[in-house]
Amino acid sequence: MTKPKIVVLGAGYAGLTTTKRLTQQLSPEEAEIVLVNKHNYHYETTWLHEVAAGTINPNQARVMISDVVNPKRVRLIYDSVVKVKKDENIVVLENSEISYDYLVFALGFESNDFGIKGMDEHAFAIEDMDSSRMISEHIEYQFAKYKTEENPDENSLHILVGGAGFTGVEFVGELAEKVPELCQKYDIDRSKVRIINVEAAPSILPMFDKDLVEYGKKSLEDRGVEFRIGAPISECTPEGFVVGDDKELIKAGTVVWTGGVKGSSVLEASGFELTKGKVNVDADLRMTGENNLFVLGDCSWVWNKEEDRPYPPTAQLAMQEANVAAKNIKSLIYNQPLEDFVFKSKGTVASLGTTDGIGSVFDGRKLQGKAAAAMKKVVDNRSLFLIGGPKLLLKKGKVRPF
Amino acid sequence: MTKPKIVVLGAGYAGLTTTKRLTQQLSPEEAEIVLVNKHNYHYETTWLHEVAAGTINPNQARVMISDVVNPKRVRLIYDSVVKVKKDENIVVLENSEISYDYLVFALGFESNDFGIKGMDEHAFAIEDMDSSRMISEHIEYQFAKYKTEENPDENSLHILVGGAGFTGVEFVGELAEKVPELCQKYDIDRSKVRIINVEAAPSILPMFDKDLVEYGKKSLEDRGVEFRIGAPISECTPEGFVVGDDKELIKAGTVVWTGGVKGSSVLEASGFELTKGKVNVDADLRMTGENNLFVLGDCSWVWNKEEDRPYPPTAQLAMQEANVAAKNIKSLIYNQPLEDFVFKSKGTVASLGTTDGIGSVFDGRKLQGKAAAAMKKVVDNRSLFLIGGPKLLLKKGKVRPF
Repeated sequence: MTKPKIVVLGAGYAGLTTTKRLTQQLSPEEAEIVLVNKHNYHYETTWLHEVAAGTINPNQARVMISDVVNPKRVRLIYDSVVKVKKDENIVVLENSEISYDYLVFALGFESNDFGIKGMDEHAFAIEDMDSSRMISEHIEYQFAKYKTEENPDENSLHILVGGAGFTGVEFVGELAEKVPELCQKYDIDRSKVRIINVEAAPSILPMFDKDLVEYGKKSLEDRGVEFRIGAPISECTPEGFVVGDDKELIKAGTVVWTGGVKGSSVLEASGFELTKGKVNVDADLRMTGENNLFVLGDCSWVWNKEEDRPYPPTAQLAMQEANVAAKNIKSLIYNQPLEDFVFKSKGTVASLGTTDGIGSVFDGRKLQGKAAAAMKKVVDNRSLFLIGGPKLLLKKGKVRPF
Repeated sequence: MTKPKIVVLGAGYAGLTTTKRLTQQLSPEEAEIVLVNKHNYHYETTWLHEVAAGTINPNQARVMISDVVNPKRVRLIYDSVVKVKKDENIVVLENSEISYDYLVFALGFESNDFGIKGMDEHAFAIEDMDSSRMISEHIEYQFAKYKTEENPDENSLHILVGGAGFTGVEFVGELAEKVPELCQKYDIDRSKVRIINVEAAPSILPMFDKDLVEYGKKSLEDRGVEFRIGAPISECTPEGFVVGDDKELIKAGTVVWTGGVKGSSVLEASGFELTKGKVNVDADLRMTGENNLFVLGDCSWVWNKEEDRPYPPTAQLAMQEANVAAKNIKSLIYNQPLEDFVFKSKGTVASLGTTDGIGSVFDGRKLQGKAAAAMKKVVDNRSLFLIGGPKLLLKKGKVRPF
């Protein structure tokens, strides 16, 4: 019998954690492991809103894969995935093809504009390092330009954010912190800058209890964030969003869409059956109907049987899935029964800038203010620790004073 | 007799130093002092190339005027000067008019494109804080855009600098330092970025000895700077410079003109007689033919009788002029004979990035490498010290490790 070959696609929370667990559970004699990723670095997806706001050095939010995965144990391929031919057990990359015995599909999310006209062309998205750095650069560029143009457009300093889910709200929280810094740097009156968060749903952050939401909304409003709640966006033009029933055009020099995500477009390119942009997986995390194909993280829906709905996609979920997927691959190799995935929530915390936040923790307690902000950093540092151990935590950990 | 009123226009090296000397030499009972400046801050003009390259925090290069001048002693007016009516002893500001008994005209330089077609429209200039911050922002924007566009223009990463005098060469020296940082931040291969310095004259930095120039040129070339010497620019287009006899178009996403300066355009607006963009002053620093009008710094030519040519315009010159101008104003008030200005050069040092430079010091010694870089920081710190004393030096001084 030849040595089984495990291919992991994507070095996000799910793929990287799976790879690490596999190296811990299987010796080089037991299995070959291949990790495919577009870049030579992993980035902290949950920190991208900080990169986009410019409140964090982008390099703090990423880590070289070869620093956390031993390249002697894992074959690292830096390439883009074109599609998976699951019936042939082959992955097509941009520059080569690779066969597998077991596949872990963890290529993460892409922005989903739900077909809103012009959104893809005219709005930035917080998708990856490149797109997030672009946003902070674009915002600062508006400030620099405003000070050097003879008749600057007052709207150019406005920042319009579509979507008040996790990413949208955490992003405006960081903006509330960054804008005063930019105003000071570029000698611009704070009152000239507007941060406007537009949301179709009747509330921001629907995953939190009402009192936490109220606290968060007020805290951000006190720091100059404007909310337009219950206001669906019908179109994105080069000037801004067309909002609400009266088709009001809200203009801004920077327009960012955070209103939705879907699984990687490679799912569709591979001909996988999609439900709302993702693949359904069974309790053992294999794609329904497949024996050797695991789909993790933002690419799959995992059913929460207790609540009869899928678990919300988070880094926490992705990393817990990775643990089970790695175990189940070992079990498959040794013809053992597979384990069912059950999510154990450690709580949810949203930051509202560096020193504020809201959260509900595993024991049901609610947090707000500095305590939540502190907890958020604990969460961020934990994911660093899980991926790179104490060394990475020391190097990139969030030990900002608060 | 009413109290004489001294008005100083401009809070650059010359104007700010004059103001400080006047407050030291004249009591509030002896003279009223007014300082007019466009912004509420003074900036270190000789550091602007670092702001433009993004190697220094812009706020380190400036200081609030009210922090270094006592607003109880000096009336501070933050406004732009429109023109001087010297026959009426009146200064016209954008929002008011102000009369004077003695005027110190020290409004600094503006970029001079020598009539090169398109230069004013299409090239950035290192003129003030706003224009310099714009350049570093624009450069970084090109990097961010390059990583997010589907078919990025390879020329967009090129940086084209016209003029290889002090500002041009010190600027490319900082760029040689900044570009590798940007490449690392944005995952761009260093070889994709070109820094091209174009100069019509047969040499860079004509004020230095040939061996120092050779050292500096080689040092910068070793760090990836390309020089096009003896190559006059006939036109600046939106794409780049048209250079040389064969009208070669050198394309770049960032185009900066550092090739020439002239005195403030307020000189012309005031109907003053100009010689190559500046006013001639007598040895006592008064404008030729005027009794109560001193013109200092980059707005005037002061003759070096020994060499029968004007002193080259530097911060050092401006501050020494200020000392004499302040003394001469006091002498005028008390009908004493005026003092002739003689420049005492302490040497000239050009930086070539943080850890390299070339210079010739007051005793004729030549410096290169780290010694020159260290000396440059001493020079920079000295100008801070002269303007704001030890407190400002501690706050904004250049104590970068090297």
